[in-house]
Amino acid sequence: MRETDLVDKIRRLAGRSPLVRGIGDDCAILWPRANEDLVFTSDFALEGRHFTLKTHTAADIGHLALARSLSDIAAMGAEPVFCLVSLAMPPNFAVQRFFKALDGEIGQHKVTLAGGDLARFDKVLVDVICCGRVPRGKAMLRSAAKIGDRIYVTGKLGKPAHRPNPRIAAGLVLRRLGVVAAMDLSDGLSLDLARLCRESKVGAELASIPIARGASLDQALNRGEDYELLFTAPPKLKIPPSLASAIGVITRSKNIRLDGRPLASKGFDHFA
Amino acid sequence: MRETDLVDKIRRLAGRSPLVRGIGDDCAILWPRANEDLVFTSDFALEGRHFTLKTHTAADIGHLALARSLSDIAAMGAEPVFCLVSLAMPPNFAVQRFFKALDGEIGQHKVTLAGGDLARFDKVLVDVICCGRVPRGKAMLRSAAKIGDRIYVTGKLGKPAHRPNPRIAAGLVLRRLGVVAAMDLSDGLSLDLARLCRESKVGAELASIPIARGASLDQALNRGEDYELLFTAPPKLKIPPSLASAIGVITRSKNIRLDGRPLASKGFDHFA
Repeated sequence: MRETDLVDKIRRLAGRSPLVRGIGDDCAILWPRANEDLVFTSDFALEGRHFTLKTHTAADIGHLALARSLSDIAAMGAEPVFCLVSLAMPPNFAVQRFFKALDGEIGQHKVTLAGGDLARFDKVLVDVICCGRVPRGKAMLRSAAKIGDRIYVTGKLGKPAHRPNPRIAAGLVLRRLGVVAAMDLSDGLSLDLARLCRESKVGAELASIPIARGASLDQALNRGEDYELLFTAPPKLKIPPSLASAIGVITRSKNIRLDGRPLASKGFDHFA
Repeated sequence: MRETDLVDKIRRLAGRSPLVRGIGDDCAILWPRANEDLVFTSDFALEGRHFTLKTHTAADIGHLALARSLSDIAAMGAEPVFCLVSLAMPPNFAVQRFFKALDGEIGQHKVTLAGGDLARFDKVLVDVICCGRVPRGKAMLRSAAKIGDRIYVTGKLGKPAHRPNPRIAAGLVLRRLGVVAAMDLSDGLSLDLARLCRESKVGAELASIPIARGASLDQALNRGEDYELLFTAPPKLKIPPSLASAIGVITRSKNIRLDGRPLASKGFDHFA
């Protein structure tokens, strides 16, 4: 297949959006609305690092690559708007299944596929860029946790789903409830909580961790790939237990402790 | 070096922008201005496809990767706003030289480095996403060429620069002059002109091609990597000869011809 033929197929998948003018030009064009901020993230999904062709089909890879970016959009309390998908792959890669899976998830989350880049390579490399929107000044931030806030996570930790489901709906609900401090859990609670505390210049005292069935406490703390939301909120803000579990409290001391003992950040450091 | 240490170094390079809140959260945040459109592009620069470690230093790669995306921003007549840089690399890659070169070019074009992704990989892979801004409805498009328009290119073709210089300034001048149809030349004039004609549903008759010193006509037509601007304008719009060379005219017939003979699209198809 020639590049123009593939671009035509992708363009037909991409459909039309009132917000975005997309594929076929040098750039995608977005008409921003008044009084909203836009948020942007890009996430690699690389063969041999984030998946292998033994464990993931082309459709799984399409799903995973988009889910990783959408999880960051969810963490800001934003509504997804569009994505750019850069894909490099060998000639035998099932590219149409990849885009079909991506399209299914795109439709579910009402994202527009607005462009990207295509290249030949001997491994499968994906970089997905997502743009989301949020009312001006309302994005949830890692840096907004305050001393005395309760700490929460959505879902149960330690057992990654083969096809993770980004918590877009939960992020929107939390932001509308008034939550201002959040991030997504991609590298393990112990490391990600340390990042949130570092950005907010605070510490944390954890008491109880919701562990997925069949996972250990160590996996819940350190395994990563949960794609749940970690957030904090002042005690007066009532968080429905159906939405998230309370796991601890933000402290002035910058240490992170679990049941009174120091908790090492053993999650997934991409460079360690 | 741990990932957090590298992120800190990159964050210090990134500086501050009145428009963008950047590195250290799940997403970059942009405050759009009223009455402007935003344009987005992403471009791979992959080891073995777009460069090799024999021909390009880490600094060259940083320069090239950003230039490829900025060239797309230039083609829209847009002003660059921010970029996200996703970089995968082996442990021995001179990552600080890469970001220093990127930073030099970022400063020159007043772009903010707003985030991206980092990963380990056995080859060097870069995906640069650029956002630009343009007054509402004024982006130059591939689809806006009209029958009777004159066709122009900036610069001379066929001899790629080792460090290409994206035509941001020329793009802004052209858009302000009233040019509405443009694209950048990355895959060779013969293929890129065919793409512009296809999007605009027109053809072209070429008469004279500005050939770089030391290059052949074949290279000027088909070699690619020129990163010049290809654009069209009605005859009444005066284009200063210092800015661009007239090379032909847009025709109703959808063929592309040079000196009366059909011109094959032999530029760089990424999949052929």
